[in-house]
Amino acid sequence: MGRNDDGDIIEHHVEEEMEKTEARSRSPSDREGAAGGTQSSHRLLAYSDALLSIIATVMILPVAHTKVHDDEELRESVQLLLTTKIAVYLMTFLIVTVAWAAHIRLFQVIVRIDDCLALLNLACMMLITFLPYTFSLMATFPNNILGILLFCGCVMVIGVIQSLIVLYAFSRPFLLNEQIQISEHQTFYRHHILKVIMRVPIMCFFASIASLIAFQLSYVLLAIVIFLPYISQCLKWCRNKAIGQVEETPDSMLFYTYLPNEPLSKDRVEAFSDGVYAIVATLLILDICEDNVPDPTVVEKEFGGNLVFALQVYGPEYLAYFGSFATVGLLWFVHHSLFLHVTKATRLMGLLNTFSLAFVGGLPLAYQLTHEFPRNSQNELEAIQISCVIIFFAGIFQLAIWVVALYSEQETLHPYVRYGGREHVFMLAKLALYPCVALVTFFLTCILSKFSTSIFHLMEITVPVAFLVLRLLVRVGLALLRLIFCPDRPDLRTVVEEDDETRVPFNTLVT
Amino acid sequence: MGRNDDGDIIEHHVEEEMEKTEARSRSPSDREGAAGGTQSSHRLLAYSDALLSIIATVMILPVAHTKVHDDEELRESVQLLLTTKIAVYLMTFLIVTVAWAAHIRLFQVIVRIDDCLALLNLACMMLITFLPYTFSLMATFPNNILGILLFCGCVMVIGVIQSLIVLYAFSRPFLLNEQIQISEHQTFYRHHILKVIMRVPIMCFFASIASLIAFQLSYVLLAIVIFLPYISQCLKWCRNKAIGQVEETPDSMLFYTYLPNEPLSKDRVEAFSDGVYAIVATLLILDICEDNVPDPTVVEKEFGGNLVFALQVYGPEYLAYFGSFATVGLLWFVHHSLFLHVTKATRLMGLLNTFSLAFVGGLPLAYQLTHEFPRNSQNELEAIQISCVIIFFAGIFQLAIWVVALYSEQETLHPYVRYGGREHVFMLAKLALYPCVALVTFFLTCILSKFSTSIFHLMEITVPVAFLVLRLLVRVGLALLRLIFCPDRPDLRTVVEEDDETRVPFNTLVT
Repeated sequence: MGRNDDGDIIEHHVEEEMEKTEARSRSPSDREGAAGGTQSSHRLLAYSDALLSIIATVMILPVAHTKVHDDEELRESVQLLLTTKIAVYLMTFLIVTVAWAAHIRLFQVIVRIDDCLALLNLACMMLITFLPYTFSLMATFPNNILGILLFCGCVMVIGVIQSLIVLYAFSRPFLLNEQIQISEHQTFYRHHILKVIMRVPIMCFFASIASLIAFQLSYVLLAIVIFLPYISQCLKWCRNKAIGQVEETPDSMLFYTYLPNEPLSKDRVEAFSDGVYAIVATLLILDICEDNVPDPTVVEKEFGGNLVFALQVYGPEYLAYFGSFATVGLLWFVHHSLFLHVTKATRLMGLLNTFSLAFVGGLPLAYQLTHEFPRNSQNELEAIQISCVIIFFAGIFQLAIWVVALYSEQETLHPYVRYGGREHVFMLAKLALYPCVALVTFFLTCILSKFSTSIFHLMEITVPVAFLVLRLLVRVGLALLRLIFCPDRPDLRTVVEEDDETRVPFNTLVT
Repeated sequence: MGRNDDGDIIEHHVEEEMEKTEARSRSPSDREGAAGGTQSSHRLLAYSDALLSIIATVMILPVAHTKVHDDEELRESVQLLLTTKIAVYLMTFLIVTVAWAAHIRLFQVIVRIDDCLALLNLACMMLITFLPYTFSLMATFPNNILGILLFCGCVMVIGVIQSLIVLYAFSRPFLLNEQIQISEHQTFYRHHILKVIMRVPIMCFFASIASLIAFQLSYVLLAIVIFLPYISQCLKWCRNKAIGQVEETPDSMLFYTYLPNEPLSKDRVEAFSDGVYAIVATLLILDICEDNVPDPTVVEKEFGGNLVFALQVYGPEYLAYFGSFATVGLLWFVHHSLFLHVTKATRLMGLLNTFSLAFVGGLPLAYQLTHEFPRNSQNELEAIQISCVIIFFAGIFQLAIWVVALYSEQETLHPYVRYGGREHVFMLAKLALYPCVALVTFFLTCILSKFSTSIFHLMEITVPVAFLVLRLLVRVGLALLRLIFCPDRPDLRTVVEEDDETRVPFNTLVT
């Protein structure tokens, strides 16, 4: 790795921004063509990201609002309802992230917009936000084809709008990506992109016809349409890796390749993730405000008008709120730290990020469960375990993003966090903290029967302190490792003080 | 104005970005000091904006969820409840936007962050998101001091955390704004900023003491603490304008001035607005998904298992959804078009933007009202009128932003939309469209007693078409005006085709 980790994060960012600026100023001045006022697409994309992230996440609310009773009789019907709603949530999350990825792909080709494209995009968004409702119908009436027909109808209209966007943009080439603008194969590109975009609506058309014959068939078709491109490309990629054959990338395959290392706009991954974390954090306070303000007449009658006593009933919920907010905030913090060092996001990293976010979106459910059951019941322990599982997976997928990035670290990571980089071990510690805490808590609940949600939430609130002392802990740990493996240089004090020197011996041990 | 509107919007954006890049690269390389890893604060601010915009807006949900009955008996108590909840919504919106403005101000001084600042900021956000709950308590128990005490406690802790942030940042000057970094008066700046920040918590401390004596007094104190700086500065500014005396701006008054022309980060105004528009658009579909999926048993019993008939009951709600989504989307579109041409946002523009957003946040209530009442009832007409009022004010405040910007157009606006600019009239038409439509609809409801919500929502859905033909309409209108006032050049066809020529005669007429 040598000395190339001298570069600062600041500089790295400046460079990045410089590149963007250059990319923009390089575009020819299409003033004549741009009479209608072409605009940078930045804010339109930010707004779309915000809409999509909220839509992907809010469907957890119906899940979290399902009242779970201890009543044995009702249990089965409630569990059925809960399973249905969780299925709706996951399907929505899946389809919205697929739509989001398609949106990124589209607007990596079209880099400028005008009023007409902005309005078409809004129409597209309107239909995407309607998709969750079709899922609700499908999940509630699995044997009725109306949900499928509605869904297919929406997807077909979205496909038509997207094709319109592509046709419009190709008729005004100054709206396009620089590479396509100067390319000779513009017609070929347009054809390729239209083909990829129209594949989904056409499959949906067949699915809707199939639903008239047998509705099970249409579900199979819909599953194929979502997963097929990824599966086929994954297989192709794996085969190429295994055989060692370097795949030739023709000019046409620069966009819409579905390869796992296809670049994904890092800005948009960040914006989408921010949206999900923000909405999850605020769903909690919404519940608190709606449910935990006591009725004045109840306070008068049951607590003799003493508001403090009345609010003490809700004590655990406040604790749960602060605990959950801290957890969401810190998961965001870890994500933020990670993407600060990521220089290029790939499709595979985006997919892992989506998995992580799907679990983050489940946190409101965990919150709801942890304060709903009576103390010291078996249900309470189970609720804590579910929370631990959710937090564990949210954290482990974040770690997986980093691991995947390390495989092609020259392209995707800043020198700081590559093997041997100054921040490598510290980043690992940051990413591993939440999965470790979740695992330990999970096993504690198995051993200690006295473990309660209050302890759990207090633990959640104390984790930030762990982050503050983490840098110190990592240093001490490294120094100890050095002491054990390289006892010939035992001056611990200088080791802790001199940054670069601390890392080098350990890194040579690892690599 | 001359020929300086030759510059393209694209170029303007490139320039802007260039400036930012320069501002960043200008900062000295503090590699030694930045061992802990300083980071660009961009994403932290984006996340904070997302959190704050959602918190500001979601408090409309308890308002919208209040069931309004036609029952005369219950009416008064429901109206009281509704008033309380609307008060909570407006107070939350106010206090969150005040906190957001303070946050902008703070992070215009601190331009880099590190892990410690990020965690402190998250703690700050956690407490801000808790504020709506204290308002709910205050509104439900206006005579109980607990709500005030909780609110004051939160604000005091937030003040302490913000002071910690300031002290921490000033102890590591490479985190600070370039201007302060090179300034000789660093200590003076720190003192000034701390004084401004601590003013609010100290007033809250007195308010909490006052609440122990007489709770009315504490409400007065809290109102003073929020409005006093603005009122005093407004008066000072007006007096200076009236006397004509140019106020000397000492070095210390570069930040935290509370002057109406103090710059406000344009990026953050956009991010906050995007958050509000996005959450408002998606609250609608959430309601649809939670409430409008019929129960399978009901469908079986009442509709003989026919899902289509069962869903026909909800017909008006789908229409309301699409209508409201179109309205929110287009209000965003107008906002987006406006801020595309704004080069610098000021405090006064930010304030007007806040007012506009507060009304946008009220749209879910309008949506709820318009589909709740039986057809052709007086209530239905009233609901449409309320919607029109909300849309009117949301639009008129957007127009006001532009009008205010025009007062100092050299600083705040792109040449395109200044008096005489190519897009000036078109921008006016865009901004005026919604207020006009709302006004016309309002008067139609007064005249036509047969006006129904369906017509209203259909109108909402057709407005996008108006935006598409607006450019054409503006051109035709201008040509007609030219024809009337300057009949010596009657060749209409060339006028429509030649852009610049069309504007010049009319602009000379106006100015």
